Amino acid sequence: MKNEKTEYVELKVDVLRKFTINVFKRFGVPAEDAKIAADILIVADQRGIGSHGLQRLIRYTNGLKTGVMKSSADIKILKETPNTLLISGGDGLGQVVGYKAMKLVIDKALKNNIAFAAVRDSNHYGIAGYYSMMALDYDLIGLAMTNSAPLMVPTHGKNAIIGTNPLSIAVPTGKELPFVLDMATSTSTRGKVEVYSREGKPMPLTWATDEVGNPTQDASRVAANLLDRKGGGLIPLGGAEEENGGHKGYGLCVAIDILSGVLSGSAFGPNLYAKKDIPAKVSHFFGAIKIDAFIDPAIFKRMMDDYINTLKNSEKAAGKNRIFTHGEKEFESYEQQKEEVHIYYKVVEELRKIGEEVNIEVPF
Amino acid sequence: MKNEKTEYVELKVDVLRKFTINVFKRFGVPAEDAKIAADILIVADQRGIGSHGLQRLIRYTNGLKTGVMKSSADIKILKETPNTLLISGGDGLGQVVGYKAMKLVIDKALKNNIAFAAVRDSNHYGIAGYYSMMALDYDLIGLAMTNSAPLMVPTHGKNAIIGTNPLSIAVPTGKELPFVLDMATSTSTRGKVEVYSREGKPMPLTWATDEVGNPTQDASRVAANLLDRKGGGLIPLGGAEEENGGHKGYGLCVAIDILSGVLSGSAFGPNLYAKKDIPAKVSHFFGAIKIDAFIDPAIFKRMMDDYINTLKNSEKAAGKNRIFTHGEKEFESYEQQKEEVHIYYKVVEELRKIGEEVNIEVPF
Repeated sequence: MKNEKTEYVELKVDVLRKFTINVFKRFGVPAEDAKIAADILIVADQRGIGSHGLQRLIRYTNGLKTGVMKSSADIKILKETPNTLLISGGDGLGQVVGYKAMKLVIDKALKNNIAFAAVRDSNHYGIAGYYSMMALDYDLIGLAMTNSAPLMVPTHGKNAIIGTNPLSIAVPTGKELPFVLDMATSTSTRGKVEVYSREGKPMPLTWATDEVGNPTQDASRVAANLLDRKGGGLIPLGGAEEENGGHKGYGLCVAIDILSGVLSGSAFGPNLYAKKDIPAKVSHFFGAIKIDAFIDPAIFKRMMDDYINTLKNSEKAAGKNRIFTHGEKEFESYEQQKEEVHIYYKVVEELRKIGEEVNIEVPF
Repeated sequence: MKNEKTEYVELKVDVLRKFTINVFKRFGVPAEDAKIAADILIVADQRGIGSHGLQRLIRYTNGLKTGVMKSSADIKILKETPNTLLISGGDGLGQVVGYKAMKLVIDKALKNNIAFAAVRDSNHYGIAGYYSMMALDYDLIGLAMTNSAPLMVPTHGKNAIIGTNPLSIAVPTGKELPFVLDMATSTSTRGKVEVYSREGKPMPLTWATDEVGNPTQDASRVAANLLDRKGGGLIPLGGAEEENGGHKGYGLCVAIDILSGVLSGSAFGPNLYAKKDIPAKVSHFFGAIKIDAFIDPAIFKRMMDDYINTLKNSEKAAGKNRIFTHGEKEFESYEQQKEEVHIYYKVVEELRKIGEEVNIEVPF
C-alpha cells in the first residue's frame, strides 16, 4: 500500500495556478473570480493545509457541474452601514464572495476603525486564515469565521447537527512572523478520520462517536456513519464530556454559527447541506479592527514581537524542543513551497482527470 | 471531614448585598462603585459560579488593604472614537471599570452598530458573562474577554506563562433563555485542582502538568507548584498535545491576551501579577454588535429560539438525558437563588472575619 501521506509530486506553482484558473473558466467562472479561487486553493497547499487545497477542486467542479454552485454568481450587498455589511454570495464559490467581502471589510475598517460583514448564500471557502491574513498589510487585526457541514455532535448529543466551524484571527507583528490562529472547533477533522479509516488503524478515542453516541476508535465505522448520516460524529474541542471542557468547543462552534448563519438570516446547524441537490447555504463572518484606534501600531507590533519571543524562548516541557506560535508552521511551509508545491500523487491523478474531462492541457 | 462542596448556608441576597457594599465602603470604595462590585460578586454565586463569587471577597479586601488595588480609582478614557475606547482602570476594582466600560460600549454600539473597548490597569473582574449579558436588553450581541494571572502552560512549554483567559459571548433570544457562552481557555481551573488537592484525590491527567511539564494526577503538587512558580501549570483546552487540539486552546488564550493586554498597550502573559506588591495590570476587552445592522432583531430572535430548540430536542447520546445550551444551567441556578443564595460554610466564616475586622455588623 502506498503511503498517502508521503507520496507526492512537486509541481510548479505557476503551472498549477494557470491550470486551475483554466479549469474554473471552463466551468463558466469569470476570469477574475477564477484567479481568486485558484489562488486561495493553492495557498492552502503551500501553507501545508492540503485538506483545503487542490484536493478539494473536484468538489467545486462537481458543484459547478450540477449547478448546486453557481459559476457566475450574483453577489449582492443586501444591507450596508459605514461599518457593517450583509452580503449574499448568490450560491457561488465561497472563495469569491469571501475575498470580496473581506476587501470591503478592510476598506470600512480603515475608514471607521472596526467593520464586520455577515455573508450568506455561499459555499465552502477554503482556509479561513486566507481572509483574516488579508488584513495584515493594513495594520488591522483580521477575523474570519464560517459555518460548515454538520459533522460534529453537541455535548451529550447523538447526532452530527453542528459544523466543525472554524475561526481565524490574524495579528500583525514587527520582525516576527504574524500571529495567525486558524482552528476548527472539533478535536480533529473528518479528513484525519478518513486517513485512519483507509489505513485500517484505530484512531484516538477522543475524535469521534459511534452511531449511539459513544466515543469509538473505529474510524471506518465513523467515516461510513457520517456519509450515511447514521448518528455519531466528530467530538468538540475539549472532548465528549464536560470534564475537559467539551462544552466549550461545542459553545464556540455554536457562537461562530450564530455570527455566520443566524446573523445573516440564513441556515444554521443541521440545515446546511440539508439536501444533496440544492445549494449548501454556507455563511461566513468577517471582521477587521484598526490597531491605531487603540494604540500606535508601531508600539503594538513591538509588543507582539516581544510576546512571540517570550512564548518561543520559554523553557520547554520534558522531551519537547520547540514551542510554536500560531501560523509559524504554515509560514515555514509556505516559504519552502513558494515556487514548487507538494501535491499528493492521488490528487495529481484527480486533477489530470478533471483537465481531460474539460479538454484542457494538463501540463504535469 | 466536611464535604466542602455540599456544606453551605442559605443567605438572603439582600442581606449579603448590603453587607458586601458596606465592606467595600469601609475600604474606601465609593458607594456607587461598591454597589457595582457587590452585585457582580453575588450574581456569580446566584448563577452557581461560586469560584468567582463572594469567596473572592477576601482577595479584593486584601488588595484594597495593601493598596495594590485602588479603592477610589481614577478611571480615564485615554483614547476615543465613535466606535472604540481605550480606558485605564486606574488599578481599581475590575468590576467597576468593567461595568462602566461595557455601558459605554453599549451606548456606542446603539449609535454606531459595533463598538469595542480595550481596558488596561485593571484587576480581576469576576465573571466575564456579567458584562456580555449587559448587552442582552438592547438587542445587541455582547462580548467580554480578559487576561488573567499566568497559570497555564503553552503547548510544549514547561512554565505557566499565560492566563486561563476567559471569553464570553451573550446572544439575545425570543422565548428561550439567552445563549451565554462563558469559558476559560483551559481544560479545567485552579479552583478544581485545589479541591482535589484538599480532598487528597488524584485528578484527571488532562488538567495540569508537573514541574518538568509532564501531565500529572497529583493535585497537591500542582497546587504547590503554582503557588511557588516552580514550573508546570494548567493545560490548554484540547489537552497537553496537539493530537486533540491543545494548540487551539493555547491559541485562543493568546488571541484574548492580544485583544486585552497588547491592544491596550499594557502587560501580557507572564507580566501580569509579576510582583506581589505592585498592581496586577489586568486588561479586558469588551464589544457589542447591533443585530439590527444586519437583520431584523425579531427575525434573529425567532431563529435563535429555533436553534436552541433544535439543539435541546436533538437525540441524546447513549446514557445521556439532556443536551444543554450555554447559559442554561446558570439561568436555572439564578432562578433558584434569586432571593436566597447558597454560600459555602467556609466562605461564610471568611465573610464573618472580614466584617469583624472592619467593624461592621455581620447579620448572618
